[in-house]
Amino acid sequence: MTQADGTATTGSAAGGARVFHWPLRVYWEDTDAGGVVFYANYLKYFERARTEWLRAQGFGQQQLRESTGGMFVVTDATLKYHRPARLDDQLLVTTWMQEHGRVCMTIGQQARRGADGSGDMLCEATIRIGWVSAELFKPTRIPPSIVKALS
Amino acid sequence: MTQADGTATTGSAAGGARVFHWPLRVYWEDTDAGGVVFYANYLKYFERARTEWLRAQGFGQQQLRESTGGMFVVTDATLKYHRPARLDDQLLVTTWMQEHGRVCMTIGQQARRGADGSGDMLCEATIRIGWVSAELFKPTRIPPSIVKALS
Amino acid sequence: MTQADGTATTGSAAGGARVFHWPLRVYWEDTDAGGVVFYANYLKYFERARTEWLRAQGFGQQQLRESTGGMFVVTDATLKYHRPARLDDQLLVTTWMQEHGRVCMTIGQQARRGADGSGDMLCEATIRIGWVSAELFKPTRIPPSIVKALS
Amino acid sequence: MTQADGTATTGSAAGGARVFHWPLRVYWEDTDAGGVVFYANYLKYFERARTEWLRAQGFGQQQLRESTGGMFVVTDATLKYHRPARLDDQLLVTTWMQEHGRVCMTIGQQARRGADGSGDMLCEATIRIGWVSAELFKPTRIPPSIVKALS
Repeated sequence: MTQADGTATTGSAAGGARVFHWPLRVYWEDTDAGGVVFYANYLKYFERARTEWLRAQGFGQQQLRESTGGMFVVTDATLKYHRPARLDDQLLVTTWMQEHGRVCMTIGQQARRGADGSGDMLCEATIRIGWVSAELFKPTRIPPSIVKALS
Repeated sequence: MTQADGTATTGSAAGGARVFHWPLRVYWEDTDAGGVVFYANYLKYFERARTEWLRAQGFGQQQLRESTGGMFVVTDATLKYHRPARLDDQLLVTTWMQEHGRVCMTIGQQARRGADGSGDMLCEATIRIGWVSAELFKPTRIPPSIVKALS
Repeated sequence: MTQADGTATTGSAAGGARVFHWPLRVYWEDTDAGGVVFYANYLKYFERARTEWLRAQGFGQQQLRESTGGMFVVTDATLKYHRPARLDDQLLVTTWMQEHGRVCMTIGQQARRGADGSGDMLCEATIRIGWVSAELFKPTRIPPSIVKALS
Repeated sequence: MTQADGTATTGSAAGGARVFHWPLRVYWEDTDAGGVVFYANYLKYFERARTEWLRAQGFGQQQLRESTGGMFVVTDATLKYHRPARLDDQLLVTTWMQEHGRVCMTIGQQARRGADGSGDMLCEATIRIGWVSAELFKPTRIPPSIVKALS
């Protein structure tokens, strides 16, 4: 009866990139006085989906930090808002690798309405991510095993 | 492989009250510079769990508001923090009715570490909730079908 | 013309405790789909006020952590919600020491509507705070100079 | 002694656009387990600054909504993150009109470290904003008095 967060599935996008799907639910905390999801919160939704995408490949970020001393940081974000989401809406976030180099990855993400994402496009984003030492935020090479697993 | 939010289960507490279980995951958005979940965010976790508890009984809050013109508001919250949660931790939130009258309900909630809640007690709360008209926030009687379903 | 956050004043409460005043403004980020400030966010408002209360006595928390290796944590919070605040409202938060021991302090806080706090009582809280080592969260004695300055 | 949020000043940018300055302080709520401001929160900082920029011209958004039935929505956001901000940092956000049409405005914003913004560039953004009816989110013409006042 309860339909909710958390069963990831993986599909295929045009061009062959593997697409990771992460379902979400809109709660009170996500909304604003406009009656809809506060636009900044899509960055949280996209972050959760990227985190689960990593986890589905076997990478926990807390564990990575402890073992490598490094962590991901967002260096650029571009967001386009199409339609508003409302309390209790189910969303599906899709996530895929757009391109990657030694020190950064560019990730495409979309949030659509519906548990299966068959509803309205709500928000699409391009997120550029780098890897830094956790202490000094010095940019360094992304662990190649991560880039390989996500590509 | 992905273990995450969202499969509710229902158990029994001492004294016979039915207990609703809601699993959660700690994301970057939830943490603060202390390296742990920011304490205010447990109110969000508990809110999500209450929302899913209602939903598991067939009550969507957006739908209730459209059909009745009313909504729940929190009137009192008491929180006790035991141990910190960290990035990537899995939490289990338990929720149960402590007592109820015509215009308010008192809900008990606990967050424990672990997908099955077998780890440390992190935070426990008592949340008192009333029902108001959505326009004027005028307190009024909670729809009896809700109180009955949750008790 | 712009009336906003950030000019602290200090008064006197009944019983002689010094009361610290911190003005705030309600922004979109603070509200929810009920059209009012999301109740969890009062914990953020109260946190900001306590931070500025400390700062007004010469204590910066980042600096304290670097110099002592310790930091404050909230161990208990009790909140009573009276009336809702809305977008663009000005609030005044009052903060005062209720009692203190070697390892914890109990702080009283209230949020009232209006730049001068002359409007409705919105929320009142009692917040109990301890001092821990930042690495292990081990409870330890609050630096006496802080307790003395705030009392 | 308390240096904090909230005294707006207005300057001039190259090219003659008037620049609005809004100071901010980093609190615990803004940070994440990386020890720095969570990147999504710059959207909140920029929102606050735009809100105060409007208010400095005499426009309150709650009041606009009540009098016109309309409100602003963000349709696009582009963010570039340069350096991290930390707990207790003072930031200065600058805001200016980049271009405007009948139904949308493009706003430039920057967050720099320091009460006077003389420190590091932390984040820069371009935010595109439209005006919609609050009930149906139907795009419509921005009240010309607002566009005129901000240009």
